[in-house]
Amino acid sequence: MAMTMYDLTGAEDARRFSPYCWRTKMALAHKGLAVETIPWRFTETDRLPAGKKTVPTLIDGDTVIGDSWEIADYLDRMYPGKPLLHGRSERGLAKFLTAWTESVVHPALTRLVVLDIYKHVAEKDRAYFRASREARVGTTLEAFTADTEANVAAFQKTVHPLRITLRSQDYLGGDAPSYGDYIVFGAFMWARSISPVQLLAADDPIAAWRSRLLAAFDGLAGKAAGYPV
Amino acid sequence: MAMTMYDLTGAEDARRFSPYCWRTKMALAHKGLAVETIPWRFTETDRLPAGKKTVPTLIDGDTVIGDSWEIADYLDRMYPGKPLLHGRSERGLAKFLTAWTESVVHPALTRLVVLDIYKHVAEKDRAYFRASREARVGTTLEAFTADTEANVAAFQKTVHPLRITLRSQDYLGGDAPSYGDYIVFGAFMWARSISPVQLLAADDPIAAWRSRLLAAFDGLAGKAAGYPV
Repeated sequence: MAMTMYDLTGAEDARRFSPYCWRTKMALAHKGLAVETIPWRFTETDRLPAGKKTVPTLIDGDTVIGDSWEIADYLDRMYPGKPLLHGRSERGLAKFLTAWTESVVHPALTRLVVLDIYKHVAEKDRAYFRASREARVGTTLEAFTADTEANVAAFQKTVHPLRITLRSQDYLGGDAPSYGDYIVFGAFMWARSISPVQLLAADDPIAAWRSRLLAAFDGLAGKAAGYPV
Repeated sequence: MAMTMYDLTGAEDARRFSPYCWRTKMALAHKGLAVETIPWRFTETDRLPAGKKTVPTLIDGDTVIGDSWEIADYLDRMYPGKPLLHGRSERGLAKFLTAWTESVVHPALTRLVVLDIYKHVAEKDRAYFRASREARVGTTLEAFTADTEANVAAFQKTVHPLRITLRSQDYLGGDAPSYGDYIVFGAFMWARSISPVQLLAADDPIAAWRSRLLAAFDGLAGKAAGYPV
């Protein structure tokens, strides 16, 4: 029997626009599973089965699920013989994490640590370092890093997707660290090695994750020369 | 024989601060492989073996690799019996992609499409939709979406990590789509279903990826009601 799914629409039945419903429709197609969609509108909460409040809501026999992430997990668990939604994609997704780290996190950290790097590099490297970095940022290192408070706030906003993720799992890799964790952790080690700036509030889930990685492998990173954070 | 790795440092040998070198040191520890690190400074390019120009540079017997991503691939390929760096982390990393999509991409798109959604929702949903969304954004839907050109530019900047990723692989999952692809693609379907705004330049690698997913599963998404993009 085909599954049934409540699917957000507007004035026209055919115009289905929910990004979450699209995740689930693509996921069902990925697995080759048929689904019958039922158009549903914002204010029709009472029409959803089993007290669900949001779409997609999927009905598969006696099972009713009202969250796209949980639906994906359910489909991979119940239909493991069909192509896995979370199949061997770890290297590809780690590549995205690399792009995010280097194009978003590193630039935000540079605002905080680049002057500290200058102060720590070898005497013979200083002229090269200042000239190359000032050309890149278009001002003096001192001016670029002047407003620490604003730069910390901007950094903390930048890493918000990391924070959300680490609220529900211990590592980016899930239950255990993977290379994706080390990609992002490298950025925190960069800062820690060179700068006394406090990047995170003590109760930030990112701080707890950082502590776990500082302690990993007999404290490989935590024992390295750096500033206590 | 232990591997050797050139590792960036500053005035003090012990202070190792390169985020890329930290990725590789954590990766080697993850696999339980011993490494001897050689301190290296910015201007010592001539000291690196095999014409390499950047650190980490790893030497393993006759092999010399000068890029942290390639080193991770090499380690998983050459030492598959040791814990994999890209081991079963796909679900965890997809969770990060979810957090990024919902906290970064969706808000940037909302600026572009929320008034169009209002225009397309059923008559009975309009009052609810306007009131709830205007409370969320703190102004009228018209004012919130007024500057399309600036909002498109901001959106295109927001998705830059996606663009970088898709320059080197066809899907976020790598060679084939995974649930991570559908998470992000859902955002593009949201916009396409409801709004005529052109989000991407024709030569953007993201546009090519979107076209591949619009065509997938016999055009499931591409044939759905929406605006041509």
